[in-house]
Amino acid sequence: MKVLITTSSFGDEGIQTLQKSGIEVVNNPYGRKITQTEAVSLLKGVDGVIAGLEQYDKDVLSRSELKVISRCGSGLSNIDLDAAKKLNIAVYSTPDGPTQSVAELTVGCLLSLIRDVPNVNNLMHTGKWEKSTGHLLKDMNVLLIGYGRIGKTVARILNAIGAKILVYDPFVSDKNIPDHFTKTDLTDGIKIADVITLHSSGEDLILGEKEFYLMKSGVYILNAARGGLFDEDALERSLNSGQVRGAWLDTFQKEPYKGNLSDFEQVILTPHIGSYTIEGRKKMELDSINNLLDGLGLTSK
Amino acid sequence: MKVLITTSSFGDEGIQTLQKSGIEVVNNPYGRKITQTEAVSLLKGVDGVIAGLEQYDKDVLSRSELKVISRCGSGLSNIDLDAAKKLNIAVYSTPDGPTQSVAELTVGCLLSLIRDVPNVNNLMHTGKWEKSTGHLLKDMNVLLIGYGRIGKTVARILNAIGAKILVYDPFVSDKNIPDHFTKTDLTDGIKIADVITLHSSGEDLILGEKEFYLMKSGVYILNAARGGLFDEDALERSLNSGQVRGAWLDTFQKEPYKGNLSDFEQVILTPHIGSYTIEGRKKMELDSINNLLDGLGLTSK
Repeated sequence: MKVLITTSSFGDEGIQTLQKSGIEVVNNPYGRKITQTEAVSLLKGVDGVIAGLEQYDKDVLSRSELKVISRCGSGLSNIDLDAAKKLNIAVYSTPDGPTQSVAELTVGCLLSLIRDVPNVNNLMHTGKWEKSTGHLLKDMNVLLIGYGRIGKTVARILNAIGAKILVYDPFVSDKNIPDHFTKTDLTDGIKIADVITLHSSGEDLILGEKEFYLMKSGVYILNAARGGLFDEDALERSLNSGQVRGAWLDTFQKEPYKGNLSDFEQVILTPHIGSYTIEGRKKMELDSINNLLDGLGLTSK
Repeated sequence: MKVLITTSSFGDEGIQTLQKSGIEVVNNPYGRKITQTEAVSLLKGVDGVIAGLEQYDKDVLSRSELKVISRCGSGLSNIDLDAAKKLNIAVYSTPDGPTQSVAELTVGCLLSLIRDVPNVNNLMHTGKWEKSTGHLLKDMNVLLIGYGRIGKTVARILNAIGAKILVYDPFVSDKNIPDHFTKTDLTDGIKIADVITLHSSGEDLILGEKEFYLMKSGVYILNAARGGLFDEDALERSLNSGQVRGAWLDTFQKEPYKGNLSDFEQVILTPHIGSYTIEGRKKMELDSINNLLDGLGLTSK
């Protein structure tokens, strides 16, 4: 059997696991996301693929002999799932991979933001000792928009710190939200939130002009989900007016981000590194290998 | 009755509570820590004091008519407790005041540190999109040195995130440490720790040259307790060698800090702001007012 790995980097451990199962491993020779033409050519004679974010459309799939696509990552929007089904290609992903990594970064950036850590740290590194009085997370109202894997993990940690958790997620039924959290609709939640954190899986705008207008003065806004879930211009205006006291963004409408939010020192910006941990990456790779072996009918140890 | 408030700032709410109890309130007119000479003069005719960090030695105390010293803060090292006892002066402090503030800052700085947030944030603010792969806290061994109020709170939160908690505190008996934490001696703990965080109340050196030698390569070190608990020169050498991967310090041997650690971008430095939150400060002030009223035999509210 032959397996193609298209992700630009992949640990030796995973490759060795495949080889021990008697599989011939072919790596992506380009060190970047492959094009559809390259995919067609690389997939010749290949039974399974450990896939990144390259496109698998009907044409690519039908010209391949693939039995399994195992995404090393959570999203499947780059794969034509209908075509895969018709061609009898099994498709897997690793939805748990980034959960803990994103949740830990969210909590760390929130706690840093409300204490002004990036700014006092920069001052200290230039020899300036300037104390800054911040805020406690304990007893703050935190509105989670989206209560999937990541939202749940963030909620559990913030609750352990002492925050009051409000959940808005129209796709989650009441019985799946713990009693000590408050289920809310979007408008009511926004009105009382001290922190609004986005963990939804959709792509549509959630916080537009109207929603910003409803927010409390001094609110903090976090986005570790997807760019485009809120109006970046409305955020900029609300930061200027002081209505939004601070923000942390890891995802942006356009990446790499080149916008005006980098002018605000009360905004923490990170370059879409929510899932970027060595340990989280390793777990994702291992999960994708196990999925691939399952799909090929080979037992993974 | 007359009460002196020596802390450089104090909320109106607390002052009003005192005034409602029929108390005349005198504020520190200097806006800074008062000297002993100033204290003697200001304390004339004063029944109780809401105290900061100014010195109350035998001389100051015996020349006063004080009935109560109510520290707005946790430490009592500025008060001659024996002399106060002999003079029948009741002494109070607010040990719970800074707990949550320090714990939240510790968790926030640790999670930021292991994900390189300050540096990628600075790069983003100069228009540079440079991803950095960090580490997960989950499954790391975190050694807490000191398991008092703050250590306990930090342990509980880090445990909720998924870290493995090791506790070194010779003054805490085994039965006061939860079963899912591991009690350890210092040497054994240091050898396996991925993170070492100081929350002890003493002033003596704990992490010297020898202890640094025992640490794992890639360890992170945090100090929110007191400067002088570890050897700053040894830390500098260990950062240079890479044995210590990163550190966060909020307290220093000499403050304001002017040392070499500000040259390391893998070190987060904050200017002793562990207790600096508006909500934590308010709670401390309220506690100190209630203690003062208790000490003066007046019911609060």
